[in-house]
Amino acid sequence: MTNKIPARFILPENKIPQQWYNLRADMKEQPDPLLNPGTGKPIQTEELYPIFCEELAKQEMDSTTRYFDIPGPVMDVYRKFRPSPLCRAYSLEKYLDTPAKIYFKYEGGNTSGSHKLNSAVAQAYYAAQQGLNGLTTETGAGQWGTALAEACAYFHLPLKVYMVKGSYNQKPFRKSIMQTFGAEVIASPSDTTNAGRAILKEDPDTTGSLGCAISEAVEVATTTPGYRYVLGSVLNQVLLHQSIIGLESKIAMEELGEYPDIVIGCAGGGSNLGGLIAPFMQDKILGKANPYFIAVEPASCPSLTRGRYAYDFCDTGRVTPLARMYTLGCDFIPSANHAGGLRYHGMSPILSKLYHDGLLDEARSAKQTDVFDAAVLFAKLETILPAPESSHAIRCAIDEALRCRETGESKTILFGLTGTGYFDMTAYTQYLEKTMTDYVPTDADLAPYFDRLPKIPGVQE
Amino acid sequence: MTNKIPARFILPENKIPQQWYNLRADMKEQPDPLLNPGTGKPIQTEELYPIFCEELAKQEMDSTTRYFDIPGPVMDVYRKFRPSPLCRAYSLEKYLDTPAKIYFKYEGGNTSGSHKLNSAVAQAYYAAQQGLNGLTTETGAGQWGTALAEACAYFHLPLKVYMVKGSYNQKPFRKSIMQTFGAEVIASPSDTTNAGRAILKEDPDTTGSLGCAISEAVEVATTTPGYRYVLGSVLNQVLLHQSIIGLESKIAMEELGEYPDIVIGCAGGGSNLGGLIAPFMQDKILGKANPYFIAVEPASCPSLTRGRYAYDFCDTGRVTPLARMYTLGCDFIPSANHAGGLRYHGMSPILSKLYHDGLLDEARSAKQTDVFDAAVLFAKLETILPAPESSHAIRCAIDEALRCRETGESKTILFGLTGTGYFDMTAYTQYLEKTMTDYVPTDADLAPYFDRLPKIPGVQE
Repeated sequence: MTNKIPARFILPENKIPQQWYNLRADMKEQPDPLLNPGTGKPIQTEELYPIFCEELAKQEMDSTTRYFDIPGPVMDVYRKFRPSPLCRAYSLEKYLDTPAKIYFKYEGGNTSGSHKLNSAVAQAYYAAQQGLNGLTTETGAGQWGTALAEACAYFHLPLKVYMVKGSYNQKPFRKSIMQTFGAEVIASPSDTTNAGRAILKEDPDTTGSLGCAISEAVEVATTTPGYRYVLGSVLNQVLLHQSIIGLESKIAMEELGEYPDIVIGCAGGGSNLGGLIAPFMQDKILGKANPYFIAVEPASCPSLTRGRYAYDFCDTGRVTPLARMYTLGCDFIPSANHAGGLRYHGMSPILSKLYHDGLLDEARSAKQTDVFDAAVLFAKLETILPAPESSHAIRCAIDEALRCRETGESKTILFGLTGTGYFDMTAYTQYLEKTMTDYVPTDADLAPYFDRLPKIPGVQE
Repeated sequence: MTNKIPARFILPENKIPQQWYNLRADMKEQPDPLLNPGTGKPIQTEELYPIFCEELAKQEMDSTTRYFDIPGPVMDVYRKFRPSPLCRAYSLEKYLDTPAKIYFKYEGGNTSGSHKLNSAVAQAYYAAQQGLNGLTTETGAGQWGTALAEACAYFHLPLKVYMVKGSYNQKPFRKSIMQTFGAEVIASPSDTTNAGRAILKEDPDTTGSLGCAISEAVEVATTTPGYRYVLGSVLNQVLLHQSIIGLESKIAMEELGEYPDIVIGCAGGGSNLGGLIAPFMQDKILGKANPYFIAVEPASCPSLTRGRYAYDFCDTGRVTPLARMYTLGCDFIPSANHAGGLRYHGMSPILSKLYHDGLLDEARSAKQTDVFDAAVLFAKLETILPAPESSHAIRCAIDEALRCRETGESKTILFGLTGTGYFDMTAYTQYLEKTMTDYVPTDADLAPYFDRLPKIPGVQE
């Protein structure tokens, strides 16, 4: 071994976290409550039961329980792929000639290829415990659908996945892998739901959106006996499960005698970023440390950097509860030329609140060609082909490390490497063949979506 | 944690092997020497220098050095993805209701998606050390090409990959990932070589074969200044590098207080099997233990179970040295409907010798639909989507575990899970859609290839 700190560090048995951490229990100000779109009143836990299974509805609404025990059967599955490694990007550091230390938490080492499995396992387990007949969900790039298909196969639950049509057509192998795990995969918008038919009527050639796929999945869950809906990001419960990323990262860094000065995560709906930063944000809130947090999003879908902090629907079909979050408007769909994932119109209410309050220090957007520059460089140096989503964080980590080279500061950088790019070779090929283009919406492009934000008497006029 | 032995065990820092193990040093009878096809005389190390870089040629010919230090820069890359986990297939055991304990060594957790990276890194390093201008190789399913592309990117070496045309057309993403790592990828047979042109002339519609791609890669290596050829399997040097799999497995099992009764590996050219069994075979040879070794190969390419133990060319174009091995004949090409990898006509001379001498206890062939039955079952239970190649070993492990259920024996089974099936979704889809068929060559199918085995005066008439 050439270096003192290993290039890849995996927690020893006796240090593996057995609980998830609920950041809300330490937040001095809570995210604004979910609202019933009909009444404009805060949602009660019971109102969520037709959508979510009961245990998950409770987790969604629980802002006081600081730690949740990870159930034994969930832990059994976690132990098949966790703890995930905390890696030191020695080759990248050397190439950049930076005094910065670059760490990344690598969540791509399971078959789903991403961090999504962390919450998928939990959600499938609770659904199976409740004796449900099946689940519905949506998937965009396919990472969530793959993870949930795996989890449902393990817990013997039928699953219907509404897959954004653009991805469905571009990524046939994503569809195949979900089918291999036994899931039914439907291109969205589809003619199987009212929401899908309405969207198709308006734009028969649409390539779909996450918001639209959510509408369809929620409609099917609420109209099929014994079915419930599950979501892979945005929700409080998802950030709770994903806290395992941050918890492991923090303990691993402690074992190595390290603590991050900067924590960087890509941000679509916020599941990875929220999970990664959770225990470090606890330190910040409690005054124990002061890490600098950066969220990185695509320039073509810039909810945090250019969205409104407002109540909005979580879906395009306007059937879900209203959440207060940074949003581009629930019918915003990023340009079809955007290959880099992170296509959701909104952002986790927890992260939105933290950003609004200045605790999540910075949000930054990146153009996709800059992101793929970083991805290919990273792949060649670190022998991991990153997912385009994850590569937003790599881009930012490289930029911060280059800044350290200028200033001479030896900062400790931690970023989340959420997954692998195995199913994104079409995008990599576009990049290599230089047919990949960048798209940044103008203010005029965004304005109509903001105009259509829901009006809620007394709350949001 | 529910179980005493973790579902996934990774060696602690102080137990990580720093050397490769050369099984030949303990073999009481050596494999027959490589022969110069022109003279019929044993090859001298220097004769290999035009084909292989010098250090690798020396490793190829060295049957006495028991351990080779893993060079620091190779170790640096290994540490990015090694040690790989030793996993306990608890869910599979439970499903099979078997008293057997099923362990697998999981080599799919790196971006190349397979164990091939272990040798690729070593070979690229030695080539870079020698100051070569570039490398050539062949790839079939694409695992080796991907691994070598990664390794060459890391050590800044140009690489030309001759990819079996059938795979080239069926697996465009495999091509893309190699290109992402900077490799040039050429469909084989091609019109860039004499060997390729000759084969195309005979059969313009051929989907190619590994043997043919080897011919082309060797020709280009030996005719391009400063280029050398590298191979991902079959060779002694490859088994040496792959011994890291077995070494880690053995130490990990020792740490867990375990020792395998049965060791199972899939076998194409033998790189994984040879690496996995190496230190256990040492125990067997030295009389320290008596594990039972099983090689599993596809019924459609049955070199060990139905091939001849004879001198043959390593390539279809008959340009390489002659190796004594179990072979189906160097121009044998498995049926195009075979999706499961392991398509090579021959078998590692070391493994061939061990099998011939009864030290490698058993070779078994499996039909591909039976293999995919095992693959899908394993994926659903263990949340890892296995490569078709690896799934041959899964099939056998399941069969052995079921036998234990019948006999009541609590055997400890170890198999090699060499890689992931991310790039094999076409095959999985065929399986799911029930369009996958089995093919077993008849004796009459095989006979003409045996008739064309090379005649070597005084050695093989």
